[in-house]
Amino acid sequence: MSFRDNIRKVVPYTPGEQPKLSKMIKLNTNENPYPPSKEVEKVLQGLDMDRFKLYPDPKIEKLVTAIADNLGVASDKVFVGVGSDDVLAMAFMTFFNSDKPIIFPEVTYSFYDVWADLFKIPYKTFALKDDFSIDVKDFCVDNGGVVLANPNAPTGIYESLEFVEEVLKNNKDSVVIVDEAYIDFGGNSAISLLDRYENLVVVQTFSKSRSMAGMRIGFAVASPELIKAMNDVKYSYNSYTMSYASIEAGTAAVNDKEYFEQTRNKVILTREEAKKELTKRGFTFPDSMTNFIFATHKEKAAADIFEELKKRGIFVRYFNKPGIDNYLRITIGTDEQMKEFFDALDEILA
Amino acid sequence: MSFRDNIRKVVPYTPGEQPKLSKMIKLNTNENPYPPSKEVEKVLQGLDMDRFKLYPDPKIEKLVTAIADNLGVASDKVFVGVGSDDVLAMAFMTFFNSDKPIIFPEVTYSFYDVWADLFKIPYKTFALKDDFSIDVKDFCVDNGGVVLANPNAPTGIYESLEFVEEVLKNNKDSVVIVDEAYIDFGGNSAISLLDRYENLVVVQTFSKSRSMAGMRIGFAVASPELIKAMNDVKYSYNSYTMSYASIEAGTAAVNDKEYFEQTRNKVILTREEAKKELTKRGFTFPDSMTNFIFATHKEKAAADIFEELKKRGIFVRYFNKPGIDNYLRITIGTDEQMKEFFDALDEILA
Repeated sequence: MSFRDNIRKVVPYTPGEQPKLSKMIKLNTNENPYPPSKEVEKVLQGLDMDRFKLYPDPKIEKLVTAIADNLGVASDKVFVGVGSDDVLAMAFMTFFNSDKPIIFPEVTYSFYDVWADLFKIPYKTFALKDDFSIDVKDFCVDNGGVVLANPNAPTGIYESLEFVEEVLKNNKDSVVIVDEAYIDFGGNSAISLLDRYENLVVVQTFSKSRSMAGMRIGFAVASPELIKAMNDVKYSYNSYTMSYASIEAGTAAVNDKEYFEQTRNKVILTREEAKKELTKRGFTFPDSMTNFIFATHKEKAAADIFEELKKRGIFVRYFNKPGIDNYLRITIGTDEQMKEFFDALDEILA
Repeated sequence: MSFRDNIRKVVPYTPGEQPKLSKMIKLNTNENPYPPSKEVEKVLQGLDMDRFKLYPDPKIEKLVTAIADNLGVASDKVFVGVGSDDVLAMAFMTFFNSDKPIIFPEVTYSFYDVWADLFKIPYKTFALKDDFSIDVKDFCVDNGGVVLANPNAPTGIYESLEFVEEVLKNNKDSVVIVDEAYIDFGGNSAISLLDRYENLVVVQTFSKSRSMAGMRIGFAVASPELIKAMNDVKYSYNSYTMSYASIEAGTAAVNDKEYFEQTRNKVILTREEAKKELTKRGFTFPDSMTNFIFATHKEKAAADIFEELKKRGIFVRYFNKPGIDNYLRITIGTDEQMKEFFDALDEILA
């Protein structure tokens, strides 16, 4: 018996590349092409240096309240964490303690099975339909918990609130996590269903629509009962997860509603344009309601296009996984970046 | 069966109060009375706003390298997290997966049993000696893991490196975590033992000696094998734990060695002075090598002194726990704060 026998063995999630070329176009990790609100900059410049010597507010009250006010919900319905990954990990730990498997689609955010393995939660996946949409019946089986990414990743497909409600109705004995990382790019949030479903947890992030992947802020919205359970777990893990800097910067970002609307609308417009350009060049893709498009080419293999783009300093995401290994996940950049991307594609496909 | 049956039930750690009075003296959560280095301010003022839209470096290379260089170890021996609580939580999850109980003293950092409960790790505690020191024999029993806070909290007692080595020698089949949150205030770090003990994990923090509790930075130093295991767990939990702001600020803090030496020496001098002042007023305490003193008064009950101080806007920490419920944990403030504290004590004890 050695200490090595007691080390937890895990197969970690592989994040997208973070290349450090001086000139590159980064369309591989679904970041926002625009910087955060100017209000964030102001707040960061004006931080009170003396405050850093003190522990930050463990209740994160300022940011929790700003998010709650923005959504029009009570602040005891909001939980904040270090990016939505932290929030989802805490939610898995808090709510998925049944002997029955939790369920989610085979093709979805690839962190779900990683968390299940880490926390030793049994899980079962089901296949998507041929068009990558989800058959709601697959969510209507006996289970220990439900996770639904809506819009789904990496497909980009948004399922209607009627679909989400069907899942909730059929799973009254399980907590249903709806992971809405991309909801601000066109979908309707399940937050509007919270009053009617006490088993619902909605998770969102500042990393996409608020241009703050670098600050690490995510949040959950649920009933006060479920939020309290998550906070109990949080206080049992790390009382002070959010730095003074991130609390202040996050609050400033939430409060600048105008900038938020402007940038998310720009991303949506660029995406709609990109759909046309991709179609012109022989790509097909499920209709996306996110800040990325999951596309396949009728002739040229995705893996080849991926490598050719990389040679030109353009990074998109390629998943070498059965069923989706002929697809590229292309993050929506600025109009200028997309032009360079399409110019490169024209070269590659010529 | 309801979703409520599968919610994890925990008794969370209770952090010290974070009162928000405009005028108060805060000697209750072992924070540093001095602000962080001016270099931290410069770096925060100069952050590239455009970088916040991108995910930060998941490998945290810049900060890891700065810490490693500062300690004179290879950078594959360093793991960085969101405060030492995050680092310790990850270490518990990574290394304590035996059916045998992990062991630590009954009176120590009160988060250890909370993490054990959270992760369902069996644990066993043992009593301190009457003088609050640890009998090394209590660490020399069959176990699934060892945690030693050195200096210990809330006692402030530092055990020698010979003691730590004795623990390591007798626990070759367990990972031994040495939690050195307060080591910079006078002790010798067990990092010097790393080359000889492959089962050793040393954990330190920026929250005390580096005045950065508000930024949330902690780290572990261990063999590349153990650091890799921790990183695998981290990547399975949250790939991006450290924000761009905290990576930059942390690096600036580590690199300002002069300021670090100045402020920690000031705290040590104030502490030694405080010991004399406490003795004069009828307090006794174990000799402290930390930035706090754990003191009891020969006549007046700790709980009463605690309340009287609070009325005067002076916050110290009181643990209502058998064996230590007549003690106060007093964080070392500035000389000016300590003068006000002693003036208040004189009133209270008069």
